Amino acid sequence: MFREIRRKDRVADPADIDRLLSGGEYGFLATVGPDGYPYSVPLSFVYINGAIYFHCAVEGHKLDNLAYSSKVSFSIVGKTQVLPDQFATEYESAVIFGTAALVEGDDKKAALEALIGKYSGGFEKEGAAYIDQAIGKTKVVRIGIERITGKRRK
Amino acid sequence: MFREIRRKDRVADPADIDRLLSGGEYGFLATVGPDGYPYSVPLSFVYINGAIYFHCAVEGHKLDNLAYSSKVSFSIVGKTQVLPDQFATEYESAVIFGTAALVEGDDKKAALEALIGKYSGGFEKEGAAYIDQAIGKTKVVRIGIERITGKRRK
Repeated sequence: MFREIRRKDRVADPADIDRLLSGGEYGFLATVGPDGYPYSVPLSFVYINGAIYFHCAVEGHKLDNLAYSSKVSFSIVGKTQVLPDQFATEYESAVIFGTAALVEGDDKKAALEALIGKYSGGFEKEGAAYIDQAIGKTKVVRIGIERITGKRRK
Repeated sequence: MFREIRRKDRVADPADIDRLLSGGEYGFLATVGPDGYPYSVPLSFVYINGAIYFHCAVEGHKLDNLAYSSKVSFSIVGKTQVLPDQFATEYESAVIFGTAALVEGDDKKAALEALIGKYSGGFEKEGAAYIDQAIGKTKVVRIGIERITGKRRK
């Protein structure tokens, strides 16, 4: 179903993709709305159990789009460096295609704890208290990964 | 047709949006494919004449999607700073909804020159020669802006 990368010389190594998935500061979620427009927004995320998780408010554009279509892409950019004299930019990126679904219960809590672990290292205790008071006011979405492509130009 | 930002306290100033449009190093183009999946990729871009322009190879996933639907979004993130103790991230972002179309002739050349000016300052002369030899092997796409929303958390 999914296509191959056209420029084979720019296919990234699996280890580079893993590093982007595990360490990327944010990614861009792209969804599709009932009006046919895609919608892409930057999000904090974690990569655990082979899937991407993010959290969001209990209502909004993202969730409305996901209710219309669960098909998403999620893209992460790593280091970039503009090369002015070469009319080019060094970059590395990963693009995921997948299906999004809300998660609840233990899965939801585990994702929120993983977000604290990734973004708030050293504040795990305060983070646990924060989760307890915020968990009812947030949604957690899991993106099941159907395909990942990684590109890099060095 | 387009919705309002839910969190009014996070609406960015027009000046901040302009700065992201003019100075952002890259943006994420989101398109929709005939299989219903959105596709988002990072791209270099310029903002001139009130529109976003980017260039790409003469064939590929982006152009195939644009042939299917010209409805796109284009998102730019500025400075971000993770605030570990606050379980939050400072950020500023702009999300554009618009319609994409290929441009030719003078418009195409002007966009390529603007890309050189933005990314290859000091190499305008070499850039002009580069454009001359590359212009037949590249496509330039203009995103007509229908709506911009800017968000920031400080």
